[in-house]
Amino acid sequence: MNSGDKVFCTYADTRLKGTYITERDGKAVIKLDSGYNIGVEPALVEKSESVPAKHPEPKKIEQNEKLSKLSIISTGGTIASKIDYRTGAVTSQFEADDIIRAIPGLKDIAFFNAHVPATILSENMTPTIWRTLAKTIYDEINSGVEGIIVTHGTDTLAYSAAAMSFMVETPVPVIFVGSQRSADRPSSDNVMNGMCSAAAAKSDLGEVAVVMHATTNDDTCAIHRGTRVRKMHTSRRDAFRSVNTPPLGKVDYPSLDVKLDSHAVRRGTNEPVLNDKLEEKVGLIYFYPGMAPEIIRAHDRYKGLIIAGTGLGHTSSACIDSIRELCENGTEIVMTSQCLNGRVCDRVYDTGRDLLAAGIIEGEDMLPEAAFVKLMWVLGQENDHDRIKELMQTNLRGETGGCTPHGL
Amino acid sequence: MNSGDKVFCTYADTRLKGTYITERDGKAVIKLDSGYNIGVEPALVEKSESVPAKHPEPKKIEQNEKLSKLSIISTGGTIASKIDYRTGAVTSQFEADDIIRAIPGLKDIAFFNAHVPATILSENMTPTIWRTLAKTIYDEINSGVEGIIVTHGTDTLAYSAAAMSFMVETPVPVIFVGSQRSADRPSSDNVMNGMCSAAAAKSDLGEVAVVMHATTNDDTCAIHRGTRVRKMHTSRRDAFRSVNTPPLGKVDYPSLDVKLDSHAVRRGTNEPVLNDKLEEKVGLIYFYPGMAPEIIRAHDRYKGLIIAGTGLGHTSSACIDSIRELCENGTEIVMTSQCLNGRVCDRVYDTGRDLLAAGIIEGEDMLPEAAFVKLMWVLGQENDHDRIKELMQTNLRGETGGCTPHGL
Repeated sequence: MNSGDKVFCTYADTRLKGTYITERDGKAVIKLDSGYNIGVEPALVEKSESVPAKHPEPKKIEQNEKLSKLSIISTGGTIASKIDYRTGAVTSQFEADDIIRAIPGLKDIAFFNAHVPATILSENMTPTIWRTLAKTIYDEINSGVEGIIVTHGTDTLAYSAAAMSFMVETPVPVIFVGSQRSADRPSSDNVMNGMCSAAAAKSDLGEVAVVMHATTNDDTCAIHRGTRVRKMHTSRRDAFRSVNTPPLGKVDYPSLDVKLDSHAVRRGTNEPVLNDKLEEKVGLIYFYPGMAPEIIRAHDRYKGLIIAGTGLGHTSSACIDSIRELCENGTEIVMTSQCLNGRVCDRVYDTGRDLLAAGIIEGEDMLPEAAFVKLMWVLGQENDHDRIKELMQTNLRGETGGCTPHGL
Repeated sequence: MNSGDKVFCTYADTRLKGTYITERDGKAVIKLDSGYNIGVEPALVEKSESVPAKHPEPKKIEQNEKLSKLSIISTGGTIASKIDYRTGAVTSQFEADDIIRAIPGLKDIAFFNAHVPATILSENMTPTIWRTLAKTIYDEINSGVEGIIVTHGTDTLAYSAAAMSFMVETPVPVIFVGSQRSADRPSSDNVMNGMCSAAAAKSDLGEVAVVMHATTNDDTCAIHRGTRVRKMHTSRRDAFRSVNTPPLGKVDYPSLDVKLDSHAVRRGTNEPVLNDKLEEKVGLIYFYPGMAPEIIRAHDRYKGLIIAGTGLGHTSSACIDSIRELCENGTEIVMTSQCLNGRVCDRVYDTGRDLLAAGIIEGEDMLPEAAFVKLMWVLGQENDHDRIKELMQTNLRGETGGCTPHGL
């Protein structure tokens, strides 16, 4: 069997049609016509027709050097992984050609340089890769490009966008984009998201943002601030939502008209700065009723801990002694809310006041995930508790403040 | 100083007006005119006028015995805690009179019996109190009331509603209600929520539900299924939202017309059953990039663990060995998604397939918090892995299945 062969296979007693990709761990990997990959016993796979798979050498794409220059930085994920139609697998041989072949409209928008600092499923993102990514972005900014597109798996895209917001100050747009449905599925969002990300990367924006479908229609992408965005659905194309703030703007499709809101940071506002120190010993826990204090204490050697408490930022009284112990031993604990929307306020109820007395820092209206990344970054810069607290409560990258009543 | 005295106090160098409540831990507790309580040095409090606080003996409320009978079960929280205007504090001397005095319209709706199985801030809810609450609800059902209202702090209200959904099968409405703003604030939601909860408790519903403001206007309450609701804002009155399913219905205000959706379970469908066994050794963790496997292993003596993974239900590959170890040692691990909306599917990507091979159970489209409560309950009934898996993936109380595309 060769990669690309059309096959029938039997899976869960059902006969399915698909494309043979490769053999892995003793299983034949088949891309079903539905777009999903499955692994089946090789003996249960048969060629469906005699037409051999064709692997024509892909043509070199001619780019127009007179257009504005954009960088495209790939880290893997669905939007990148489906570019190679022959195997359905992630390719590390990623060049500008590959993405232009997948999204031909791009070559009318800009001249692209491509970089591949990582090829991972985004759930495997780590602080180490964040540092490599930050350096790549910073170098590309300094090379003079008009904007940068970062393709990224959607699982941890929002965490990475928040991380880059803190690690790199940028005068040009740094646009994270992903795809919820792979290119070989009829409902794929990769072309529209890719085109809109390029338009946003050429726009007047001057900050780190995420560009993804705004609705389930193919007519608008939203531009979300990197520190205020969250993946709010497992599979919908409009899964990404701004929380506690309106989106920075939108990109109409197919016109590619970009409209930026007044609170979006404009191109050229900031000088490029790379500050990639991160304290990796930071945790994030969501409180739940009956949580044993031992779960707090399991973080006693952590430099930092984000708690996503209930409501205005609470844990049970039973957890407060352990929280105090950690604070006294130098763990910086920041309280956020598992409500996600709204602002923490620990001065209203007794439990909150007890938590403040125990030493927690109120995380204002930051998303728990953005607060997690910010605390890693702040602890990479500072040792002094008062200064750490001040930075955590200061709006550095639009991650807090300006909460609107329309944020839900 | 007497409870109820009008005072001026100085807090953070600001002169504030309020009402003296009591002295606690060496601090004078003042209810500010904004509705918030603060604790200040007693020396910084002065009476604002010479009019002494009046504590007239509250009149006995006449209830109409010819009306339908409802039970009101109080567990504490903002809606109950502000009923005693004199002290602003939680009272355990809670009688039907107290809530009717706070919401006088109730006495035209029904004849109320009151019970106080607990008086807690809801972040201190525990499985033990859930058992007491379940027994109280079950006994009230058997006493022949037409419906039950449970007043509850909003922090963990959704967890408790999910817990009661599993622990008590009910032929009559069991309506959880809370208040995001206390009764002494102009924007309080306690009267409208209380009135709508009584209307819902008399309706044709036959399941556990949550009744809270549907919008920021005072015109409609939503009726949410107990296993599908989540507090999605720290302070807004419409913080409670149905996830992955539409609300069960709504109550218009002030008409109190109840409209139930076709998927709402109707009155009399189920016989009363109390099944209050819970396995308390169950945890809930939200995965984040770079999470150390030691955080998984900190749960190695747990009988059950819910993971809220990224996207379709993923952790990093680095965590999978620890997950496998726990599964092999008998911890039941159920995967849900931190996206909250949408369905877990671990068959799409390699990481998901590896997690399935390690032994996780897919949590379908259950909220992590509902799955957490359900797993405690299922492990209270069953020891056999296959049977536990089957129950976790079976729709028992509307907690999974029937996912609509409008759930976001």
